[in-house]
Amino acid sequence: MEMKDMSKEQLSELLSAAKKEYDGYKALGLALNMARGKPAADQLDLTKDMLDAVSSSTDCKALDGTDCRNYGVLDGIKDTKKIFCDMLGVAEDELIVGGNSSLNLMYDTIARNFMFGVSKEATPWKDAGKVKWLCPVPGYDRHFAITERFGFELINIPMNADGPDMDMVEKLVNEDSSVKGIWCVPMYSNPTGITFSDEVVKRFAALKPAAKDFRIFWDNAYCVHHLTDTPDTLLNILDECKKNGNEDMVYIFASTSKVSYAGAGVAVMAASKNNIDYVKYHMTVQTIGFDKINQLRHARYFKDFDGIKAHMKKHAAIIAPKFDAVIKALDENIRPLGIGSYNTPRGGYFISFDTLPGCAKKVVSLCKDAGVIMTGAGATFPYGKDPQDSNIRIAPTLPPIDELEQAMKVFICSVKIASAEKLLAE
Amino acid sequence: MEMKDMSKEQLSELLSAAKKEYDGYKALGLALNMARGKPAADQLDLTKDMLDAVSSSTDCKALDGTDCRNYGVLDGIKDTKKIFCDMLGVAEDELIVGGNSSLNLMYDTIARNFMFGVSKEATPWKDAGKVKWLCPVPGYDRHFAITERFGFELINIPMNADGPDMDMVEKLVNEDSSVKGIWCVPMYSNPTGITFSDEVVKRFAALKPAAKDFRIFWDNAYCVHHLTDTPDTLLNILDECKKNGNEDMVYIFASTSKVSYAGAGVAVMAASKNNIDYVKYHMTVQTIGFDKINQLRHARYFKDFDGIKAHMKKHAAIIAPKFDAVIKALDENIRPLGIGSYNTPRGGYFISFDTLPGCAKKVVSLCKDAGVIMTGAGATFPYGKDPQDSNIRIAPTLPPIDELEQAMKVFICSVKIASAEKLLAE
Repeated sequence: MEMKDMSKEQLSELLSAAKKEYDGYKALGLALNMARGKPAADQLDLTKDMLDAVSSSTDCKALDGTDCRNYGVLDGIKDTKKIFCDMLGVAEDELIVGGNSSLNLMYDTIARNFMFGVSKEATPWKDAGKVKWLCPVPGYDRHFAITERFGFELINIPMNADGPDMDMVEKLVNEDSSVKGIWCVPMYSNPTGITFSDEVVKRFAALKPAAKDFRIFWDNAYCVHHLTDTPDTLLNILDECKKNGNEDMVYIFASTSKVSYAGAGVAVMAASKNNIDYVKYHMTVQTIGFDKINQLRHARYFKDFDGIKAHMKKHAAIIAPKFDAVIKALDENIRPLGIGSYNTPRGGYFISFDTLPGCAKKVVSLCKDAGVIMTGAGATFPYGKDPQDSNIRIAPTLPPIDELEQAMKVFICSVKIASAEKLLAE
Repeated sequence: MEMKDMSKEQLSELLSAAKKEYDGYKALGLALNMARGKPAADQLDLTKDMLDAVSSSTDCKALDGTDCRNYGVLDGIKDTKKIFCDMLGVAEDELIVGGNSSLNLMYDTIARNFMFGVSKEATPWKDAGKVKWLCPVPGYDRHFAITERFGFELINIPMNADGPDMDMVEKLVNEDSSVKGIWCVPMYSNPTGITFSDEVVKRFAALKPAAKDFRIFWDNAYCVHHLTDTPDTLLNILDECKKNGNEDMVYIFASTSKVSYAGAGVAVMAASKNNIDYVKYHMTVQTIGFDKINQLRHARYFKDFDGIKAHMKKHAAIIAPKFDAVIKALDENIRPLGIGSYNTPRGGYFISFDTLPGCAKKVVSLCKDAGVIMTGAGATFPYGKDPQDSNIRIAPTLPPIDELEQAMKVFICSVKIASAEKLLAE
């Protein structure tokens, strides 16, 4: 029976049982974490041999003879570029290999546009008056944090099953010249796990922005992070933009943070040659170049894009069972009670869970008190404000599966308590 | 006989001989480079074993148990911090370990102050009207390029034998609130090779800036880059600033670019805890963290600051003979003719050469036409404008010594030609 159909007595009884169960968990002194999308140690072990790809017994030369130990090559060695060009479907002059952080590339891109504009001719966003920014929700807290820090006005865009609400996006972008950008995680979106449909991508590419310096920040963080053998597919946004003469409208980002090492991977940005040339014009003042030995390490270990794809199957073998465990626990314990909705992602790093309205903070707080750290309620919304107080991002990859199952028991129990209390108070 | 004392006939004869010699060099089809301060391949070989310090047969754990492969630790692992804290004489909470580029840390620090101000309370430099910036000259072209890109007004400050002209610095900083910063390479300065005297450092620390948000950018790039067994010493600027209640006035930068790898080292910034806390407040929005595996690699290989010091002796053994070769060539061929002045550095990466006024561009151009690339004349001055057209930065580290000697022959011959032509035209 769903909880909404229960009598007060039935609810009270359920609440009482859940509280008893909860107190039992609390007494265990747990210290479990489902907060961040961190790979687990056994995933990081997968690339152990990569550390030997550049060693005292190898040279440090790129294929074109570049000594990766020395200065130079602002946009990355060709060996590494090739892999990412194939991965993202872009040309060599449409890509820059950066340091270890794609977030850093995104921040720098916003900072660059803020300080200097999107091109030599453009007005810097700092001088453009109010800047509005579209944020599909729920979304990635670190994206929102960047645009919040720059003082932009963040506008929530509902996420549908096929991507952001494009009617709303088109209206805002095409009619309001203060709308300068949008955050997108187009594949296995953080946290909803959905992949933008072909139609959504085409509508993005066909935007006719009121602001000539409107930019799509296309964070393709999970482009190879499939959990199944029948992966989602995503249209190439840059190709689609070119068809519409909009090739300067999009910046694409990706990294190996969840391929090789979260703390020591390689990040890339891709865009039209025009955009990339402009980025390099500023970047050459900012740095002489990024870590080329790490770029070489990645190129030698993965060899090519097929190498990346093969490697990602090993990740899936480790983390798919964790996703399954979470979904199983939710299917068995939450679905029958009708006290939460959630996705079953085919890739990415998250499960997005919606409590009954007004229960998310309470659930996260109950979890915390019992030693289970979840991403803060509201974190998936700009300014940390979930208008429904219902979304919770579940990150199942880090804990070992037994800890994950234990954490899910605490989570489910907390959802029961918060839901029962809410329904009883109505 | 010095050239200034020669008759027209003697000058013509010298010029003719020099031109003949020059044509001989030109016919060789040389391709030599003394332009950038790049380490040579045999210097890079010195840290070959560092690449094995983290490998498939080691773990990736910092001493406190941090898994360096995963996300986290914004300001760097303690293992690596310790080495740089000892090197710079600062506390752990006064230091951030960044990526591979100290230039990037400097750029980001200026960008941060430009966009957000030097503290939460301060006015961002973008809103502070005209920003003036002091540039000791000759200096580092990449420093000047950053502040030029931000549109600051760059003011030349003459470099004396003990550091910048402090009378001028004090007057400008203490009286003009639009002066927001100064570039300094306080030890083995780029390119003059001088180290700031204790008195100069004390006068810096005792500045009473008209602008509360005035900042010293103390690029201690060559702090361990001694060429002799009797190294220069430099006062600790942060300690001195503290004595004057000025501890927030300075940012210190350093890196291992010329210790381990120019393209894959580790960079740091140091400052008061107050400043570092503020930097981290913004940096946490910019990135989750820098490459900790590379930090660990450095920490394990060098072990401690003594390890760095011992290692730098190996560098000196390779590059000191190159400096000697340049100085010897200049002593034998330029000094007797009185057509150039230069320093004999006890550390760093450069020899600063001053031609007769108005000859630098001509010399660099002659060298280029004979296949010897020098740093562009004027590069050591803001906007690339050397008012005397006399300074040329010689970077002797990259070429093998035989190539360096060959390149110096071309250089000396070019100086003779340019000097003789100038004197003949007077």
